[in-house]
Amino acid sequence: MSTLTNVVDDLVAANRILAGLDVLDGFGHVSVRHPERAGCYLLSRSLAPELVSRDDIITFDLESNAQDGDTRTPYLERFIHGEIYAQRPDVQSIVHSHAATVVPFAASSVRLRPIYHMSGFLRTGAPVFEIREKSGMTDMLIRNKAQGAALAETLGDKSAVLMRGHGYCTVGGSIPESVFRAYYAQVNAELQHRAITLGGEVTYLEDEEARLYDETNRSVIGRPWGLWKTKFAPKD
Amino acid sequence: MSTLTNVVDDLVAANRILAGLDVLDGFGHVSVRHPERAGCYLLSRSLAPELVSRDDIITFDLESNAQDGDTRTPYLERFIHGEIYAQRPDVQSIVHSHAATVVPFAASSVRLRPIYHMSGFLRTGAPVFEIREKSGMTDMLIRNKAQGAALAETLGDKSAVLMRGHGYCTVGGSIPESVFRAYYAQVNAELQHRAITLGGEVTYLEDEEARLYDETNRSVIGRPWGLWKTKFAPKD
Amino acid sequence: MSTLTNVVDDLVAANRILAGLDVLDGFGHVSVRHPERAGCYLLSRSLAPELVSRDDIITFDLESNAQDGDTRTPYLERFIHGEIYAQRPDVQSIVHSHAATVVPFAASSVRLRPIYHMSGFLRTGAPVFEIREKSGMTDMLIRNKAQGAALAETLGDKSAVLMRGHGYCTVGGSIPESVFRAYYAQVNAELQHRAITLGGEVTYLEDEEARLYDETNRSVIGRPWGLWKTKFAPKD
Amino acid sequence: MSTLTNVVDDLVAANRILAGLDVLDGFGHVSVRHPERAGCYLLSRSLAPELVSRDDIITFDLESNAQDGDTRTPYLERFIHGEIYAQRPDVQSIVHSHAATVVPFAASSVRLRPIYHMSGFLRTGAPVFEIREKSGMTDMLIRNKAQGAALAETLGDKSAVLMRGHGYCTVGGSIPESVFRAYYAQVNAELQHRAITLGGEVTYLEDEEARLYDETNRSVIGRPWGLWKTKFAPKD
Repeated sequence: MSTLTNVVDDLVAANRILAGLDVLDGFGHVSVRHPERAGCYLLSRSLAPELVSRDDIITFDLESNAQDGDTRTPYLERFIHGEIYAQRPDVQSIVHSHAATVVPFAASSVRLRPIYHMSGFLRTGAPVFEIREKSGMTDMLIRNKAQGAALAETLGDKSAVLMRGHGYCTVGGSIPESVFRAYYAQVNAELQHRAITLGGEVTYLEDEEARLYDETNRSVIGRPWGLWKTKFAPKD
Repeated sequence: MSTLTNVVDDLVAANRILAGLDVLDGFGHVSVRHPERAGCYLLSRSLAPELVSRDDIITFDLESNAQDGDTRTPYLERFIHGEIYAQRPDVQSIVHSHAATVVPFAASSVRLRPIYHMSGFLRTGAPVFEIREKSGMTDMLIRNKAQGAALAETLGDKSAVLMRGHGYCTVGGSIPESVFRAYYAQVNAELQHRAITLGGEVTYLEDEEARLYDETNRSVIGRPWGLWKTKFAPKD
Repeated sequence: MSTLTNVVDDLVAANRILAGLDVLDGFGHVSVRHPERAGCYLLSRSLAPELVSRDDIITFDLESNAQDGDTRTPYLERFIHGEIYAQRPDVQSIVHSHAATVVPFAASSVRLRPIYHMSGFLRTGAPVFEIREKSGMTDMLIRNKAQGAALAETLGDKSAVLMRGHGYCTVGGSIPESVFRAYYAQVNAELQHRAITLGGEVTYLEDEEARLYDETNRSVIGRPWGLWKTKFAPKD
Repeated sequence: MSTLTNVVDDLVAANRILAGLDVLDGFGHVSVRHPERAGCYLLSRSLAPELVSRDDIITFDLESNAQDGDTRTPYLERFIHGEIYAQRPDVQSIVHSHAATVVPFAASSVRLRPIYHMSGFLRTGAPVFEIREKSGMTDMLIRNKAQGAALAETLGDKSAVLMRGHGYCTVGGSIPESVFRAYYAQVNAELQHRAITLGGEVTYLEDEEARLYDETNRSVIGRPWGLWKTKFAPKD
């Protein structure tokens, strides 16, 4: 199989996995940088992730214009992807989610912090994007390049960015990594919520502990990814 | 297919979807205005939503009397539907639910407020109906026209009304919209509960943000609705 | 079919339903008064409820001795059932559960109270049984007639009794009623926990509201029971 | 069947059960002492527990070296198992998990304590292992004999040890017992969290109550184990 075919298969798997793990419901999306066309990325047409198949994948340039005359309805928020890829050459894949445990941290003055090794990728902190700052009153969506660029600036060199009143994004050096981070960001939010509400003193990971595990994770990430593909990827 | 057939199919789908999404259990119901008979609405006979099929649908007038001599047992609380349709010409569909995350807000002095865009329909607030005010001690059910009318008055021009010690209703301009609102009202309740218990300061949607997304939602609501029909509607 | 056959079928269904609804896991049990033999009740042999079939049902007298020379291993805690049937002639069926939302109320000074109509049966309060009072240090189980009798005394004329450090029991005038109460006791515990942790003022059902709904419930309980049998009872 | 075959079958079942009960996800592992080779234990190769089959089981000595020239990738953290078996001759089986309800207690100054009989095995307390004490900044994993030995020392003669910023381990005199403890440790964490957040006074099990039930449990543990095998073990 060509590299492109493999990458598209993994992107379809990522859509199904994120739906299967309840990280995405009818909304949210996952993209990957095009493996063969510089300055392009791959993203489904506007469709619930659980229903995405190979034929639904569209190629966009970094202006988030569909290529090859594709006129199918795209996600309104594809600019999230285009602008992050433009500002972060190291990023190969991006997930945007409304997962239930994370949105409360995006609305709260309490910061999301890594409470165990699996979420070491949060070590540099998960900044919160406030769309009101530059855009004032909106429908909360990232609808154009300017809003996407502002979001990408808030993300900076981090692995995750929360969006007030909306959701969050995770980025990674591969599809498994962005998916892993989207999943464990919401697990961490659940764990941190529980720890805080217990009422005692909470010990978070030191930055160095978080960094060391995030590095280790690259050697073991194939284990959950293999499980998730087995459980959720299309069988054909 | 006739309009009526399509509407009945969507109403059956709505019953199965709301059960599949755990918005309804053995109790609760969903109705739609009759597409061809002015002053009538469609609602299942007294049956758990998960078991509802086409043949279970009954036509009621706005007095909530079954039409065409249908003598099957109706829901005791059909007056919720008749009275809201009578007072709200813009409403095409109504859901009544006891979903677990919303009932606590109906019993609490803390108000349900939109914490993210998906629940922008809560922007005008979700008033709480206190049945004691007009009816004193009751079994909490909406058992007659007077109680239904009082509930509809509390709803006013809003999209959702909570019922103290009981549950809530959402209304919409279509079946997908009332179902969407029933589902995301309970997601919002979960998110808001988490945000409040985190203990920090919580930022809710401004009224204008909520209004703008609620408008946007009309163009994207087909996405979750398509997913939900695929997953939960009867296959025949 | 004979009455006995019907009752045994409903008892098997109740076992499967309570497992399917996560009210029981590998532990807990449900019994019914024998429909034909005065002073006897029916209860499975020691087995996880999800695995119970007709052949597993044993007849016990109110001393909780197996009848007809049945020597299969009984539940250690069958005395819960025998003693409640002895003290409460109105009770026809009993459920004993460790459901996760209720146990915290059994360990807390905060009382379980009805927060919505479905749990109106809690209206007279759910007293907490403290086994230490009469038995001192134990393994927490109801292992003999004296402990069962003490539990039945704490239950009194109520519909539910919590057991500190252990679980709870619900009783009813029929199998569907005891099952309904076991299920909605744990839903109510979840709702009440959410309402309390929201931090506002909580309005509970007045005793009269609770009593009125509990009466109404007898006319609508067939609806969830029908659903639950369809979903969880053995198909043969 | 030989003893070894039976033990391997139970170990495979334990992997599937712990995944089925959501005690393990893509990570975590369960081991058993080798029934025929002194100073050896059995553990899967590096694989998600839900995917483990007989052929994946590797024999390790107590130095955690694979035997018989097996060169397949082992779990990085196999030293947890080797060192606990070395220090605790009574232990026959060990589970290591990141279950979501327990990790918050591992990060909090609030101690995990038995709130009902099922978690009587926590009676002697669940000490918290702080890897920083001896190892300073790490990736949080137990990567060598020294770290495993330090963890085993913190465990001491207890049945469970929490690992700050990481997870926990349970040990038992048999596979069913270590699995039972891994499952009910996370149930207890959920119950205790609920009880604490209710805000009232919480009564925990007295040490003697906990000890008495933990003893009783040996005679009834076959009930959940039988259920779990029926539901989750491979059918072949």
